[in-house]
Amino acid sequence: MSSPLTFQPVLDRIAAEIEQTPGRGRPADYIPALAACDPRSFGMAVAELDGTVYGVGDWRQPFSTQSITKVFTLALDLAHEADELWEHVGREPSGNPFNSLVQLEYENGIPRNPFINAGALVVTDRLHTQTGDAAGTLLDFLRAESGNEHLAINEDVAASESAHGDRNAALGHFMASYGNIGNPVPALLDAYFRQCSVEASCADLALATGFLARHGIRADGSRLLTMSQAKEVNAVMLTCGTYDAAGEFAYRVGLPGKSGVGGGIIAVVPGRCTVCVWSPGLDGHGNSVAGVAALDRFTTITGLSVF
Amino acid sequence: MSSPLTFQPVLDRIAAEIEQTPGRGRPADYIPALAACDPRSFGMAVAELDGTVYGVGDWRQPFSTQSITKVFTLALDLAHEADELWEHVGREPSGNPFNSLVQLEYENGIPRNPFINAGALVVTDRLHTQTGDAAGTLLDFLRAESGNEHLAINEDVAASESAHGDRNAALGHFMASYGNIGNPVPALLDAYFRQCSVEASCADLALATGFLARHGIRADGSRLLTMSQAKEVNAVMLTCGTYDAAGEFAYRVGLPGKSGVGGGIIAVVPGRCTVCVWSPGLDGHGNSVAGVAALDRFTTITGLSVF
Amino acid sequence: MSSPLTFQPVLDRIAAEIEQTPGRGRPADYIPALAACDPRSFGMAVAELDGTVYGVGDWRQPFSTQSITKVFTLALDLAHEADELWEHVGREPSGNPFNSLVQLEYENGIPRNPFINAGALVVTDRLHTQTGDAAGTLLDFLRAESGNEHLAINEDVAASESAHGDRNAALGHFMASYGNIGNPVPALLDAYFRQCSVEASCADLALATGFLARHGIRADGSRLLTMSQAKEVNAVMLTCGTYDAAGEFAYRVGLPGKSGVGGGIIAVVPGRCTVCVWSPGLDGHGNSVAGVAALDRFTTITGLSVF
Amino acid sequence: MSSPLTFQPVLDRIAAEIEQTPGRGRPADYIPALAACDPRSFGMAVAELDGTVYGVGDWRQPFSTQSITKVFTLALDLAHEADELWEHVGREPSGNPFNSLVQLEYENGIPRNPFINAGALVVTDRLHTQTGDAAGTLLDFLRAESGNEHLAINEDVAASESAHGDRNAALGHFMASYGNIGNPVPALLDAYFRQCSVEASCADLALATGFLARHGIRADGSRLLTMSQAKEVNAVMLTCGTYDAAGEFAYRVGLPGKSGVGGGIIAVVPGRCTVCVWSPGLDGHGNSVAGVAALDRFTTITGLSVF
Repeated sequence: MSSPLTFQPVLDRIAAEIEQTPGRGRPADYIPALAACDPRSFGMAVAELDGTVYGVGDWRQPFSTQSITKVFTLALDLAHEADELWEHVGREPSGNPFNSLVQLEYENGIPRNPFINAGALVVTDRLHTQTGDAAGTLLDFLRAESGNEHLAINEDVAASESAHGDRNAALGHFMASYGNIGNPVPALLDAYFRQCSVEASCADLALATGFLARHGIRADGSRLLTMSQAKEVNAVMLTCGTYDAAGEFAYRVGLPGKSGVGGGIIAVVPGRCTVCVWSPGLDGHGNSVAGVAALDRFTTITGLSVF
Repeated sequence: MSSPLTFQPVLDRIAAEIEQTPGRGRPADYIPALAACDPRSFGMAVAELDGTVYGVGDWRQPFSTQSITKVFTLALDLAHEADELWEHVGREPSGNPFNSLVQLEYENGIPRNPFINAGALVVTDRLHTQTGDAAGTLLDFLRAESGNEHLAINEDVAASESAHGDRNAALGHFMASYGNIGNPVPALLDAYFRQCSVEASCADLALATGFLARHGIRADGSRLLTMSQAKEVNAVMLTCGTYDAAGEFAYRVGLPGKSGVGGGIIAVVPGRCTVCVWSPGLDGHGNSVAGVAALDRFTTITGLSVF
Repeated sequence: MSSPLTFQPVLDRIAAEIEQTPGRGRPADYIPALAACDPRSFGMAVAELDGTVYGVGDWRQPFSTQSITKVFTLALDLAHEADELWEHVGREPSGNPFNSLVQLEYENGIPRNPFINAGALVVTDRLHTQTGDAAGTLLDFLRAESGNEHLAINEDVAASESAHGDRNAALGHFMASYGNIGNPVPALLDAYFRQCSVEASCADLALATGFLARHGIRADGSRLLTMSQAKEVNAVMLTCGTYDAAGEFAYRVGLPGKSGVGGGIIAVVPGRCTVCVWSPGLDGHGNSVAGVAALDRFTTITGLSVF
Repeated sequence: MSSPLTFQPVLDRIAAEIEQTPGRGRPADYIPALAACDPRSFGMAVAELDGTVYGVGDWRQPFSTQSITKVFTLALDLAHEADELWEHVGREPSGNPFNSLVQLEYENGIPRNPFINAGALVVTDRLHTQTGDAAGTLLDFLRAESGNEHLAINEDVAASESAHGDRNAALGHFMASYGNIGNPVPALLDAYFRQCSVEASCADLALATGFLARHGIRADGSRLLTMSQAKEVNAVMLTCGTYDAAGEFAYRVGLPGKSGVGGGIIAVVPGRCTVCVWSPGLDGHGNSVAGVAALDRFTTITGLSVF
């Protein structure tokens, strides 16, 4: 891989292979907006460190980012308060489903990591306290990094998430009972559901993830995170980024990655590029079937696995 | 124990012994109204099947009934919908603290029994659906059985419970996420916190519990529960009535009983009488220290243990 | 129920009803000796306090006592070391299947109660240390109380248990790792499997259980347990005696009872009589289907429930 | 890092820094042989792909490899039976301590990954079945890769492990009860304790790990694992290699690594080199305090983190 020009044929080849693959899983069906997605949709983009973007398929179509936003709120909160955060959320794999309450109870309301729902709620709660508007801060950041001023929150999706949000409400109140939530739980949930409802395309997200491939440097050259913090976020992505299938993702794809139930996955090749893939059909762990397959092919073809 | 006249000296003797006992535990301190209770308070009452009541100490002073009300809402809901209830809550001991979420998750939102908080929320939810006003239905019943029209809900305590209600809110939303709650969670919590805030005295509660000693017959001679249902409630009290110390209560006291964090405990001698004791200082399981000791003495002196 | 003469017609009536009942469950099939039992077998015996025995059906046929023996080893160990035992095993319902390791781990190798397998292993271990031969001590006791010198251990069954004993071996080694086992684990397992392989009839077991109805007094009039200890054993039977269906047994039958996977169940009416029923077909909890049904009928017909 | 010659000054600098660091943790004390280690011992070695080795401190002193051997038995079993293994052990982080039985019970005797003790027992059991002598196969491999014919099993340590092996015996019998162990449990435990008792130096282990940096190629140029399998082992090391501190290791060190309670840690820089560090003092997770610190410095100084 000596030349960036070679990414386009790689993407074309992957798209052609995915096209031939039967079985795409099923879109998330807990809210109508996600259930309505066409499982045949597929898009993939690669962004180089300098912002050059390559893409294939539906790579410019916005989709619901959902849990992918947890990476950005984590980075933004670390930028604001640094290690203080780690007193309120851990950095270890959970070994349990993403919305489980069991471990939370045994560990006194401190979530295992920032990417299970409980941990993401803590991160959003703290970012909301730091900035007064967690979802707005996130949106500003994504717009700046992607250069796309049209990125927006889908308020219908946010309302739909809220209407089906009992499990997250339970997590929020449960952690509040341990004193680990600073905002009123309804306000936190509102911020969280709006955060999850940001819509962006593969191109937008590949660009927005660039600071993790650049060891903390934003698109405009300013520093968001220290090199150590950027590596930390990548490490947490690799060990905890794909729900309870983090191990499988690590050995199949071999890159730090984060998935969302909207069918998107972002991945980082440190020092080299970022990738975003989207296809709404999910496997039993909540990860995009075609998305994982495409990233598996990507690292196999390019040799760009960290292992 | 051939004559009811002998209960008064028994109570006097127990009160004298308790008076000599150092160490009463500490009142619940999660809300101010409970924390303000004098741990030296002690009252005890015995009601015969015919409504004759004997008492000692602070037996006529109202206190916060709290979880004791779970017995009455259980009976009232069974009277309304019978076995339908048991599809939504189990009847087995939980082996976990009263407000744990762990077992609830492993068992898909069906609480182990009606006396852990999760189970009591389900019972109140269903009674609220049946009657439109769970707390009001409870209050009417307690007034009728005790003959005390002055029984009331302490709305300050209810508000205070609500302000410290994150754990119960978590339980409610969590079960709602499994489809096991019919009312909106905030409405359910309001009903539940008002139910817990009913105030009554030892005399009131000993009388109100009488239907369980009379195998289902109310004070006015009408039937609330079938004999089988009344035995069922007694059995659930014996195996699950005192949080995660049900085993200890069973072998020390040997009667179906139910405690509350207000420091009250009711107990049933089937076919013979009911007992209510109150002292606000609690042990580590949330049971009244002097209350358990007094009941232990009661069954030892009278031989009225079921074992 | 004023006269002992009335037990015979009660038993005859129950046997006739059970005869008409379809569905007996399936015998335990983890070892051949149990799997070979005829699920249509049914016997039931009642023993009065004075040793008068009534019976019906296969009430004199020996069967594999299995977990029923846990009641006797518990009583025998309490007779030897009294409350010392309770530092090594709890007295609370477990809320988990009888051979679960989960709670054991969270509670540092102290089993919840003497009737789950882990707790029974602790009791046998301690009795073995006290007497040098736990299974022999048990056998001597059962022979003396039943007056049947022919009671014996089925060594083939014991060998078969041992060959299928990995789960119990795991429990033994696990507790040994916490320092809660005094004998070498293989020696303990040998004693335990021999204990479980004692064979006795309904008549034998109803008589042998008599000391629990007589508040601690043996058949020869000597005292095995204090009144308080006898009530304690009854309380533990009621709250923990039928695996994870203790609650269901309590509200259906309403007596302290203990079941075994051989299909036997013993039950105690304190101060009145003991009952033993046997039918090898089991329900999903490991309790005899016809046995529970027969005891349910027994308390319904006689009114002898403790509730 | 363009020249291999630069590793020596890196190692010298790290050793000098570690020398100044107070607090080394405490050696494992569950067996005398480990407890007797001097916590001030420190050695570190780096092996290039071609077998060139650099070292500092006690890098040639043999120590007890313990859990580090789990990497080699995993690789050897994969070489024998490939993906068949993954039907008997998972590849996901466990989120629980290395010797926990909880998850094992919820997941029916299938361990979460090959590096918790339960998983390592399954791997050894299968390798033992494949080869007839798991520990011997391991020893032959380590001798061949390190070129050190003197590598040996410390039989005293193996005997000592066996004498303190109740927890592992519990794991073995527990999995056997689910049918997930093929050999008799005592034979498996003997093989496992002997495997853990292999002694080797930092130099030996850095060389023996080389096949993971060479994507599956052994020292003699033959292939042990496919490229995909080699990456898989690296991925499992990164996500599961350091007990319940895998996340912390990933973000501090950023390399696939595996620790042992003897105080050793091996780490892989794919395509570049391997590292082994040894210092017997452990932290609360069972990882070498100075070892983790030295690897942290190594990736910081050289920039050779995978992130």
